[in-house]
Amino acid sequence: MKKLINDPFEAVDETVEGFVTAHANMVALVTPRVVARRSPAPDKVGVVIGGGSGHEPAFLGYVGEGMADAVAIGNVFAAPPAEVVLEAIRAADRGRGVLQLYGNYAGDVLNFGLAAQLAASEGITVREVRVTDDVASADRSETERRRGIAGDIIVFKCAGAAAERGWPLDEVFRAATKANSQTRSMGVALSACEVPGAGRPTFTIGDEEMEIGMGVHGEPGISRGTLKPADEVARALVDAIVADMPSDATGDVALLVNGLGATAHMDQYIVYRAARSVLEAHGLRVVRSYVGEYITSLEMAGVSVTVTLLDPELLALLDAPSHAARSLP
Amino acid sequence: MKKLINDPFEAVDETVEGFVTAHANMVALVTPRVVARRSPAPDKVGVVIGGGSGHEPAFLGYVGEGMADAVAIGNVFAAPPAEVVLEAIRAADRGRGVLQLYGNYAGDVLNFGLAAQLAASEGITVREVRVTDDVASADRSETERRRGIAGDIIVFKCAGAAAERGWPLDEVFRAATKANSQTRSMGVALSACEVPGAGRPTFTIGDEEMEIGMGVHGEPGISRGTLKPADEVARALVDAIVADMPSDATGDVALLVNGLGATAHMDQYIVYRAARSVLEAHGLRVVRSYVGEYITSLEMAGVSVTVTLLDPELLALLDAPSHAARSLP
Repeated sequence: MKKLINDPFEAVDETVEGFVTAHANMVALVTPRVVARRSPAPDKVGVVIGGGSGHEPAFLGYVGEGMADAVAIGNVFAAPPAEVVLEAIRAADRGRGVLQLYGNYAGDVLNFGLAAQLAASEGITVREVRVTDDVASADRSETERRRGIAGDIIVFKCAGAAAERGWPLDEVFRAATKANSQTRSMGVALSACEVPGAGRPTFTIGDEEMEIGMGVHGEPGISRGTLKPADEVARALVDAIVADMPSDATGDVALLVNGLGATAHMDQYIVYRAARSVLEAHGLRVVRSYVGEYITSLEMAGVSVTVTLLDPELLALLDAPSHAARSLP
Repeated sequence: MKKLINDPFEAVDETVEGFVTAHANMVALVTPRVVARRSPAPDKVGVVIGGGSGHEPAFLGYVGEGMADAVAIGNVFAAPPAEVVLEAIRAADRGRGVLQLYGNYAGDVLNFGLAAQLAASEGITVREVRVTDDVASADRSETERRRGIAGDIIVFKCAGAAAERGWPLDEVFRAATKANSQTRSMGVALSACEVPGAGRPTFTIGDEEMEIGMGVHGEPGISRGTLKPADEVARALVDAIVADMPSDATGDVALLVNGLGATAHMDQYIVYRAARSVLEAHGLRVVRSYVGEYITSLEMAGVSVTVTLLDPELLALLDAPSHAARSLP
């Protein structure tokens, strides 16, 4: 992989430095791996997000008004250490408690969990929602084992909007929990990426192949096969998502098509078009649409599709104003 | 190149269809290759943009409030036909004249020029500004031969904001002309892209190579060499841009780092960090920053750097509110 970086071991810190400088009107560096909203509302629940680097604009791009208050940043594809998460919690805390949100990966669960305990010992109440939208990563009977992918962004936005409205911690937690449980995603990978300095790709995939359900760090998917036309790929992803929904699911949905890094915007819109058509054939109505790179895997080629079953509350939270480097929409 | 498309010959129309459906709150399809702002202000100068497809979010992403009123869409890397441009002009016209803006490429010059003549015969006054920001594409003594790359976006935004304020055509033209003359860019390509259906890349570049100054369609650059660290690449780009500026250039600038498609956001921020540092060493102060994919070349790897010398008027226009699929910032 050809990269425009300097020392691979400085890549994360240089990215963070570039980001904070470019978006100094919205964010500020708290510690080398914690970025916080520059002017948080004084009296609100704090929202902390975080995870490994290499997924930009996730996670630091979602810090801002109506989104997260602080982000804990790990090394590439690695959970942030507990002390970094703790710094983010402290930065976000305004005395009304903190909700931490992160994709459900073992390292993140461990470090965010430990940080929450340490914060509790300092008198900060912390609750958490682990995002588990990737239907390919575990069976429907074990949703608590599922990984978090682009559904992260839906959950961040809903929780951020709820906190911005001044809702108490229990209510922000409830909104985030609902956003997560109503959100399902599945992705397809077409090519690998390479962690800076690793010297080899995170996995290999044949020139004519794709892998459905592959995770954003190259975790195994549910099927590998010949690369198919966009309409067929979108149908496979959406059918799997819809099959995972409650059997009485009808009504309005939000549809997010996420580029993983190297796939052209053209392809993203072609997949969006097909995904929307398949959803409509299933009797669902797409009322909100987001297309672009929301959570990437460095220069991996591929896309993911995320569908959220909406109710009036979730729709209002998704539509709430926000101002971050990467706002939704 | 692995693409998520269907029939290559349907890729542009399917992209446009997906785009218009996803952003139906902001835009509407006028003809199969013209997208217009859904609710234009009734009494303003019309702003028309356009060019080939494959550069998404350019050009259709920049249609919206405070940006362009209509876009003329060509095939991949091909100028829109004159009749398509004419439809866009008609869609944008509100009786106060139309300013058309496009990157300076032979096909676009021909077709936009012809369309303007046809529009004139219908009683629509059309003026135009060809964006010529790519300093690598021709010498300083022949700026009118230079190509337009990411500087397009700066010019679109300034003209769109001026038109939204109700300025007359001459004033919108003046603002766009100034934005163009104050804007300089240079890019670097690390890998090629492939036009859908072409079956081969648009050019080839060695595994360890980069090409400085290469155009967004693979036009030859000014030097090819071994891939260098991001700081060195950024220095080469910024030094060339600054060398092209008037010798008395000091003061405030806007800095835009544009990803060409396959280069990670991480790399874009690392290049931004370096470019900013080099600009500051040249005595220029970066007061506005934009980092992301603004005009791509399908899945080409690489970045471009754009610098605009600001005055209070240009700064105010850049900061004016806008609402498009891809707003600035």
